[in-house]
Amino acid sequence: MGQEQTLIPSARTGIDYRTADSRLGFGNSVFAAERRLLAQMLESFGNPAVRFVLWDGQEIGSHDGAPVARIHIRDRIALLKLLASPELQFGEMYTAGRLDVEGSLTELLEAVYRALPSNKQANVARKLLAPFYNAQRNTLARARRNVHHHYDIGNDFYRLWLDEQMVYTCAYFPSHDTGLEEAQVAKLDHVCRKLRLKPGESVVEAGCGWGALALHMAKRYGVTVRAYNLSREQLAFARERACAEGVERQVEFIESDYREVSGTFDAFVSVGMLEHVGPDHYPELGAVIDRCLKDNGRGLIHSIGRDSPRPMDAWTERHIFPGACPPSLSQMMTILEPFDFSVLDVENLRLHYARTLEHWLQRFEAEKDRVAEMFDPAFVRTWRLYLAGSVAAFKAGDLQLFQLLFTRSRNNQIPWTRDTG
Amino acid sequence: MGQEQTLIPSARTGIDYRTADSRLGFGNSVFAAERRLLAQMLESFGNPAVRFVLWDGQEIGSHDGAPVARIHIRDRIALLKLLASPELQFGEMYTAGRLDVEGSLTELLEAVYRALPSNKQANVARKLLAPFYNAQRNTLARARRNVHHHYDIGNDFYRLWLDEQMVYTCAYFPSHDTGLEEAQVAKLDHVCRKLRLKPGESVVEAGCGWGALALHMAKRYGVTVRAYNLSREQLAFARERACAEGVERQVEFIESDYREVSGTFDAFVSVGMLEHVGPDHYPELGAVIDRCLKDNGRGLIHSIGRDSPRPMDAWTERHIFPGACPPSLSQMMTILEPFDFSVLDVENLRLHYARTLEHWLQRFEAEKDRVAEMFDPAFVRTWRLYLAGSVAAFKAGDLQLFQLLFTRSRNNQIPWTRDTG
Repeated sequence: MGQEQTLIPSARTGIDYRTADSRLGFGNSVFAAERRLLAQMLESFGNPAVRFVLWDGQEIGSHDGAPVARIHIRDRIALLKLLASPELQFGEMYTAGRLDVEGSLTELLEAVYRALPSNKQANVARKLLAPFYNAQRNTLARARRNVHHHYDIGNDFYRLWLDEQMVYTCAYFPSHDTGLEEAQVAKLDHVCRKLRLKPGESVVEAGCGWGALALHMAKRYGVTVRAYNLSREQLAFARERACAEGVERQVEFIESDYREVSGTFDAFVSVGMLEHVGPDHYPELGAVIDRCLKDNGRGLIHSIGRDSPRPMDAWTERHIFPGACPPSLSQMMTILEPFDFSVLDVENLRLHYARTLEHWLQRFEAEKDRVAEMFDPAFVRTWRLYLAGSVAAFKAGDLQLFQLLFTRSRNNQIPWTRDTG
Repeated sequence: MGQEQTLIPSARTGIDYRTADSRLGFGNSVFAAERRLLAQMLESFGNPAVRFVLWDGQEIGSHDGAPVARIHIRDRIALLKLLASPELQFGEMYTAGRLDVEGSLTELLEAVYRALPSNKQANVARKLLAPFYNAQRNTLARARRNVHHHYDIGNDFYRLWLDEQMVYTCAYFPSHDTGLEEAQVAKLDHVCRKLRLKPGESVVEAGCGWGALALHMAKRYGVTVRAYNLSREQLAFARERACAEGVERQVEFIESDYREVSGTFDAFVSVGMLEHVGPDHYPELGAVIDRCLKDNGRGLIHSIGRDSPRPMDAWTERHIFPGACPPSLSQMMTILEPFDFSVLDVENLRLHYARTLEHWLQRFEAEKDRVAEMFDPAFVRTWRLYLAGSVAAFKAGDLQLFQLLFTRSRNNQIPWTRDTG
């Protein structure tokens, strides 16, 4: 007890929290109650193979084996915040530099996710919490703010670590060793093949990002595309690329969201948008698809998902994706079941998203100094945690990636098998 | 009005309903109100391209084009029953021979299904009716009675029109022209490949029919199988075949249902059983799978389904499959979402079941005289209507066939892509 140690001032504020502690009259000693609470917290998390190292050098851990990683807690207030709200405050304190990880951040988080009590028990907690979490409604105005928060950070930032075409969704790796550039093109083709696009057909895309899929469909599959997005930065990039590649008459980019889709189309496609829609709005999305899809039209929704309904974790919702919620399949079905839609095919590409994120994290780390220059060191830590946490969540099976292909119930112009036309 | 016509006495009772009519004092004339009600019924069914021909020779139809088929109504009481409860009484009157179809029964029914108001409108009615339909609970005793009703009719009967291995579920036709025998083997392999069975693994099968899949898995994939079924006739056949083929030590057939599954296994498989479980019991089935599946185990459920929750039609529920209910995907998810399960893959083989049923119907028609000898002419008509109605329902998109592959959320020993191991 009472062992002195130099504390690292917070990356964000520069405050030495030892001073704050002293003002509170606690001194630097770690109390037995604090150690016990930390041990209890680890136990409630299923005893993952991690150890805490406190500001006085003491180690605390409840797992018998060698730790995957060590979490250094730099001051008492960080510890108390972590104890009070671990899911939120782990990220808050990590970003602030008042909590550090010795070892692999990704492996640490995967170990924590894997050790967490199973869905069976967690479901009880989720049901209790659900009314609080599901209250948020993504109106068009809020959806704009949410999109702006994440996607309008700046194209230059995303260009540092995404592939050349700026595809910010799960790639498809024909083999584990496929490179990211190739895997993103393979994903675009995977989606187009499932939709069985034919030259001259019309496609509506809800949430088009930087336009890679829209442009790919137009250039490689000879279709016309109307693509919707709320992000100005992304649309500016997409329109410029359409002109540069000579398909500006084939692809129309519209600054609006799924609610304002107009026209009728041979195919509906949405890659990485559903996460931002919110389950409350799924029947509304279903009505839009019903309105815009021709009788023999096909639809594909590609979305991060869950194995059972659960809200986005609090830290990610606050700092990364406000208003977001990855749905379970039963939740996704509330888009389709109220209407005349029939699911043809569902594929879960969870491990492909873990691989995609590993590529992004690696590229991000290689550019971290430039990111720090563009923003600040806290931003680097926030984004590192988001990317590493996402790798971990997909690897641990806490997040899924569903590609869901559908058509109208009455449509018999459907492929005979997956392999044939 | 009043045109005389010779009536065909009922196939079942031999009663001339003209006489019954006379006793009721109606005479044989068709009243204007009856014609109007029939026209209204057609309208409420979306004006399918069918015409009614009444016992006095009058034709009634609301569709402009050439009719797909004509429905002859032989007497007034049949007409009144049909008007009062068309969904149930069409089948009742058809079986009794008091209603006949001129033209293709399958095409007639498909036209009716296709013309029916869309799910959007029908959903309202379904929601109102749901509390009445979902009340039935398939206890083990009732499940036994339900199974006995359909599957214990006699192996000799099913042998007349099923394939050689007696597979009474949707086949998989690599091409549309594949024969039934080959397509049933292809289906067994399709299921085994999805489950990635390896020699020496253990499999539990819930609802094994005549044992074709269990025996195929043992012989071709080198696994041991514990297979459950409530049908004595089927089990007798399956056990005999296991001995004849020398795999009686590899395959154990147990006369019980999914609730009594014991042991732990590398794979859970159920082909064509879920239809009989009933949505009320899905969480119970999920708990059984959770109890019996090893950590890296895989599961496959193959079931007739719906695009949205809807009860089985009244005639089929009464005469063919008591206690049965084809679930929607959201209903199927109530098996998996309360537990640690993750959906890897869903495939809809709707048109393959239409093709399978066309084969069965064709073989059944070729043997109809022998079936009539085994049972009676009314039985032939009941089964013809069931088979033709099923072809029509799958073709019209009123029924689906889902193959759903899953594993535990935490299992990373999953195939990298659909094509690779």
